Amino acid sequence: MNKLYVVGIGPGDPQDMTLRAAKALEACDVIAGYGVYIDLVKPLYPDKEYLVTPMRQEAERCRMAIDCALAGRTTAMISSGDAGVYGMAGLILEMAEGKDVDVEIVSGVTAALSGAALLGAPLGHDFAVISLSDLLTPWEKIESRLALAAQADLCLAIYNPASHRRADYLKRACEILLRHAAPETVCGAVRNIGREGEKADIMSLRELAEYPADMFTTVFVGNSQTKVAGGKMVTPRGYKNV
Amino acid sequence: MNKLYVVGIGPGDPQDMTLRAAKALEACDVIAGYGVYIDLVKPLYPDKEYLVTPMRQEAERCRMAIDCALAGRTTAMISSGDAGVYGMAGLILEMAEGKDVDVEIVSGVTAALSGAALLGAPLGHDFAVISLSDLLTPWEKIESRLALAAQADLCLAIYNPASHRRADYLKRACEILLRHAAPETVCGAVRNIGREGEKADIMSLRELAEYPADMFTTVFVGNSQTKVAGGKMVTPRGYKNV
Repeated sequence: MNKLYVVGIGPGDPQDMTLRAAKALEACDVIAGYGVYIDLVKPLYPDKEYLVTPMRQEAERCRMAIDCALAGRTTAMISSGDAGVYGMAGLILEMAEGKDVDVEIVSGVTAALSGAALLGAPLGHDFAVISLSDLLTPWEKIESRLALAAQADLCLAIYNPASHRRADYLKRACEILLRHAAPETVCGAVRNIGREGEKADIMSLRELAEYPADMFTTVFVGNSQTKVAGGKMVTPRGYKNV
Repeated sequence: MNKLYVVGIGPGDPQDMTLRAAKALEACDVIAGYGVYIDLVKPLYPDKEYLVTPMRQEAERCRMAIDCALAGRTTAMISSGDAGVYGMAGLILEMAEGKDVDVEIVSGVTAALSGAALLGAPLGHDFAVISLSDLLTPWEKIESRLALAAQADLCLAIYNPASHRRADYLKRACEILLRHAAPETVCGAVRNIGREGEKADIMSLRELAEYPADMFTTVFVGNSQTKVAGGKMVTPRGYKNV
């Protein structure tokens, strides 16, 4: 049967992909994805055919990868992080429904995990992953999720905290969180995970509101128990006996 | 300097660890961890020294690994999934504070991601990861988080949904979720990810309340938009234009 792998390659450095992901890339004829991800894996698999898919036009990208697999060429569609977290996996599954193609999702290390490892252990207890991108989600929905997550005292990993068009979104998010969480809540930000210019900063929630995040930043907000230990951001595993 | 790696090996099958994790295990003298995880990696690194740490006594386990590194032996403490998600990474960082040991956290694929890949793409939009274990967390806190997460229409990955002692916890959790989410909400459960007996089931939230989860099960609850496509559980990436 025609085979289409949907592969998360992790944060950036190909070292952070799983052995299963490496094996899928090894097994395929064609590797499809954005140019920036293809540039990351090409040195490792120089003899594969590459299909550079266009930015933004996500349904078109998925169609290209599915068509490639339907033509009998084993195909791997790659994305950064995990393909199921704000990724193409769901759209591929929907578009492949009823077609003669076997879709296999190969999970990867999403930025919530790789960024956390750089900061210490900020997600050591219950947490939420929330994107501030309002491209496909109404901002009111994002606001409501932030407020409820803060009321729940969940740790947070915040994706897409800012872009050119959304320069003040992180500040707006912090203002909502500050209604329910202490200004001293321990927070962190990681930039360019696994790539040149990698950088991790620890700060308070009040400071986070002024932090110059960009589209390569992932932000972490601790819960009420999160502390700094040995220069690292640590959320204890529980509320009892700690 | 003395080196201690804290390595998440992913869900079970060593194929699901990252190349960086494999390299850390390669680079160390001693691999420490529970017997069950050591049995998984031993065939790959037969010549390493192994330090089997006791169940439950978590501070003691961390102390053993830190002492081993302090004795000048490069040590890797392994855990399943990601060591920062309900894992030992935070405790290690706290206990290693001020000691002559460089701790490096190597992230891994946590069950929320590996289980999601088996079900389809259930975490395609904002989500929360919540554990039902009340060993270190008061049950009232867990209840409150479930209620707020459901109000926020977050997808959920539920860890530790049941054990012998907590046979009815998943049912209790579903009853709370059902106050805010439709009984038809698409849910999933995955058992023994990456191991013998791997199994993925898709069902409604009403059915999930009666599902025989055990300590090897990870549970997924969709949001209001989650659907079944081609037999897979899919949460669309947004609420607009979908």
